[in-house]
Amino acid sequence: MNAPMAVSKGPRRKFWSWGYEGQEIPESEVKSMHARVAQRLGMSDFTVLKDPTLDEIEIRAPRITPPASLTSFCTTAKWDRVAHSYGKSFRDLAMIYKRKYPNPPDIVAYPRDEKDISAVLDWCGENGYAAVTYGGGSSVVGGINPPDDSHYKGVVTIDLENFNRVLEVDPISRAARIQSGTLGPSLETQLKPHGFTLRHIPQSWEFSSLGGWIATRSSGHYATHLTHIDEMVESLRVVTPTGTIENRRLPSSGAGPNPDRAFIGSEGTLGIITEAWMRLQGRVRFRANAAVSFKTFYQGAKAVRQITQAGLYPANCRYLDEKDAFFYGAGDGSESMLLIGYESADHPVDAWLERSLEICRDFGGTVKDQAGSGGAALENSRSGAQGSWRNQFRYLPYLMHVRAAMGIISFTFETAYTWDKFEAVDAEIMRRIADAEKKICGGGIVCRRFSFLYADGPAPYYSIMAPSSHEKNIEHYAALNKVASDALIELGATITHHHAVGRSFRPWYDKEIDPGFVRMMKASKRELDPNWVLNPGVLFDRPAM
Amino acid sequence: MNAPMAVSKGPRRKFWSWGYEGQEIPESEVKSMHARVAQRLGMSDFTVLKDPTLDEIEIRAPRITPPASLTSFCTTAKWDRVAHSYGKSFRDLAMIYKRKYPNPPDIVAYPRDEKDISAVLDWCGENGYAAVTYGGGSSVVGGINPPDDSHYKGVVTIDLENFNRVLEVDPISRAARIQSGTLGPSLETQLKPHGFTLRHIPQSWEFSSLGGWIATRSSGHYATHLTHIDEMVESLRVVTPTGTIENRRLPSSGAGPNPDRAFIGSEGTLGIITEAWMRLQGRVRFRANAAVSFKTFYQGAKAVRQITQAGLYPANCRYLDEKDAFFYGAGDGSESMLLIGYESADHPVDAWLERSLEICRDFGGTVKDQAGSGGAALENSRSGAQGSWRNQFRYLPYLMHVRAAMGIISFTFETAYTWDKFEAVDAEIMRRIADAEKKICGGGIVCRRFSFLYADGPAPYYSIMAPSSHEKNIEHYAALNKVASDALIELGATITHHHAVGRSFRPWYDKEIDPGFVRMMKASKRELDPNWVLNPGVLFDRPAM
Repeated sequence: MNAPMAVSKGPRRKFWSWGYEGQEIPESEVKSMHARVAQRLGMSDFTVLKDPTLDEIEIRAPRITPPASLTSFCTTAKWDRVAHSYGKSFRDLAMIYKRKYPNPPDIVAYPRDEKDISAVLDWCGENGYAAVTYGGGSSVVGGINPPDDSHYKGVVTIDLENFNRVLEVDPISRAARIQSGTLGPSLETQLKPHGFTLRHIPQSWEFSSLGGWIATRSSGHYATHLTHIDEMVESLRVVTPTGTIENRRLPSSGAGPNPDRAFIGSEGTLGIITEAWMRLQGRVRFRANAAVSFKTFYQGAKAVRQITQAGLYPANCRYLDEKDAFFYGAGDGSESMLLIGYESADHPVDAWLERSLEICRDFGGTVKDQAGSGGAALENSRSGAQGSWRNQFRYLPYLMHVRAAMGIISFTFETAYTWDKFEAVDAEIMRRIADAEKKICGGGIVCRRFSFLYADGPAPYYSIMAPSSHEKNIEHYAALNKVASDALIELGATITHHHAVGRSFRPWYDKEIDPGFVRMMKASKRELDPNWVLNPGVLFDRPAM
Repeated sequence: MNAPMAVSKGPRRKFWSWGYEGQEIPESEVKSMHARVAQRLGMSDFTVLKDPTLDEIEIRAPRITPPASLTSFCTTAKWDRVAHSYGKSFRDLAMIYKRKYPNPPDIVAYPRDEKDISAVLDWCGENGYAAVTYGGGSSVVGGINPPDDSHYKGVVTIDLENFNRVLEVDPISRAARIQSGTLGPSLETQLKPHGFTLRHIPQSWEFSSLGGWIATRSSGHYATHLTHIDEMVESLRVVTPTGTIENRRLPSSGAGPNPDRAFIGSEGTLGIITEAWMRLQGRVRFRANAAVSFKTFYQGAKAVRQITQAGLYPANCRYLDEKDAFFYGAGDGSESMLLIGYESADHPVDAWLERSLEICRDFGGTVKDQAGSGGAALENSRSGAQGSWRNQFRYLPYLMHVRAAMGIISFTFETAYTWDKFEAVDAEIMRRIADAEKKICGGGIVCRRFSFLYADGPAPYYSIMAPSSHEKNIEHYAALNKVASDALIELGATITHHHAVGRSFRPWYDKEIDPGFVRMMKASKRELDPNWVLNPGVLFDRPAM
């Protein structure tokens, strides 16, 4: 069969990096990243690989082809298959730069409605194919990579780009019914005329979707309180191979276990989320924020803990160690830096910030920039340490591929654990990573920040960079990642706070989670997806069939 | 077999009402309740039934007896069986006053540890018996009443009174590991020396347990934000017929669906919660509060909505309609009354209250009593409208039986629904109840308050009182309850915000919840409890066996 006509209606994204085709990254930015990495790692030369072109990629012929009934929205075209082979993990980018595509999907489907989804799932179930749901493709955990399981005679990736609309806005309850394939910018653009915002802004925001956020328990803008998307879900609608499930739209309920929670975090294994009623926020009118430096990371952490336990709920409360602050342009490398901010659509929040800064001073913090309702808090958040961090945070995804192209190691891992063991666990993680970098790569750096915070513990985010080579970088990455992941599980932390489990972190998830709960998930899976079509290998194993 | 020795170590509670044996209700309180009911219903005489004595109760002989291996902690004694036959619903109390006990448990077990629990569950599973978990016995939804299902040859009630200790306190993370049978007062008494509080205070607090709160998604002290116990659970330990499940203690995680949420709200159907790590609060040092009256319920509701959507998170935000306010001594019957309060262990909360009162004034509210950090906020919360409400709220359970003894109807129902339909749904509910009261009972009253609040909707709580007779009250109650429950489900509300489903609300839960989710719960049930031992008939049906 000839490849069907292109059926995707969306603008094309670069298959090898962040951004749309034609969206140029200025050469100066690339050079600056080269220089920063060189400086960080104390290296002077790199072999920088060229960006791949589609012609250079070789993929196997599709093993299966869609039947006539599905061709109007399914394709086997090379670009679509290549573009849906990988997410955005370090390993994915390294494989892309090596032009290695051993396991592309056979078909990419772009369903136009739920009927199309059901038709694909039926066809997969009848024929022993796997189906992978694809939202924005930003997974860094192998969540959307086709399963490598010979049980399946083919793999269909279901791209939800046509599920891209805000269907209904309820301004009284401040909620909206939104299709799951809607990406961050489109979602906000559609809400803006109504005067609302979801205000869920993970670093992947431009190329991640509402459904992806829900399926992976994404965390977004808020550093405290509404951290996970979980809290913003009012109700879900989910298409499964055995029928569609729609939960009642409610502000809260005590009627049995929360039925949405069974799907929030299910990573595409139980059903395909097609719509959600989401809780919205008013647009921000009041801000108060500051940057506060601390001599040591642990000293400032004590202040951060007290702020978190005080019930003040800052919207922003990113706390960077001295190296992380330096890399983000938010410090000179000698001090840890807290970027704290409050916001409201309703009232001035100066009292909230004042109390937080009082706590910071009690723990030896030095307030660097401060602005409240009397001043220029919006401008303050966009300049100085806060502005540098914000700009870097938003722009960094566009430069991920630069590091993969250099033949070094660059990845992050994130977790959460309780405050009682914070210093001991953090010190042990830092020690193990530094040792492993030395042993495996001959050196490297590791730094960390708090990305999200809870009264009972922080969610620390660790960044790793180490020298390597194009021959060894995937092997080195796997070895370092194992050291990090083993440490998290051994030391009582979680394998992921907001990146999800996917295929990459299954071995550690298996150790974290009680086997009894895995039995429950598999029982639900058998009930909803008896042919085990949906995203096999993620979260739990396929039984022998 | 003779009845085994008494194996319960706890002080005896009255089997027919709230409170411990020997805890006298002053006759003046009883008379005052008689007078208030008479005044409310415009009735002048009642036949007040005497409180039942154990001798008057006739129950069938136990259908099963525990084997020797279990007798050290199991009993078939009459008192234990009678005391575990009913919860505290209006129907339960009416049946108790009629001395009707058609379906007592055959055995009451008081396990001393998890091994004892497993032994009972094994014995039940091998012999076709049902097991009902019993915490504080305060269910108003038939959640702990023995199932009336001839499939089971016997019923064992498992009372967790021996699981009554705070095992561990982590002052740094502000969390404690607590056994599930611990009742409210004991829990707080054990936490107090550590300087912490769980601050979860449902109206049933004195005679309800941590495990019961978790299994039923109880709501407690906080009117916003930390309303449900769900948010306070850090991790659970659960004994099931096929093994013990222990989830990792974490402040948060994005690793798969939250495993605790599968058990929170499972109402004893999937396993027996034995321990939980719970998040704690610092003891309150700062308060600010006020009472605000509004001319109409709907006018004030607009202010309450805006406060809730402003992200202010009052700890108390009970909003009573004019009749409810009058009944609680918090108003003269002409105006609706908002009791709003902020509290903190860390900082003055005057700014929060000020903004709330500004909103109230914008909507025509009249501030009656106000106190903040400069004044006597603690005293303020214990006097005036706030104090009257608080005292009545705490004391009312002690007088529940008085109304059942009078042969009238008195019950409450509670729900949650989104703000967009609030006035329409509330008006329709009020209309249907008033009509039904007239038709069924010849009259009666209905009033309501907001008990808990969310940005996307209120959790209204409706109180019903109607004339009836000792001959007809159960039938009348069933008819009125049907009208109320039908309305909730038809009008898009939930059948329960915090009382749970139990056996009483199953028909409406079946309509509220998607059958696909019921299939998932049943699949989990089959996996964990293959002999269908645990609390059959609650949440979902037993399959034909």
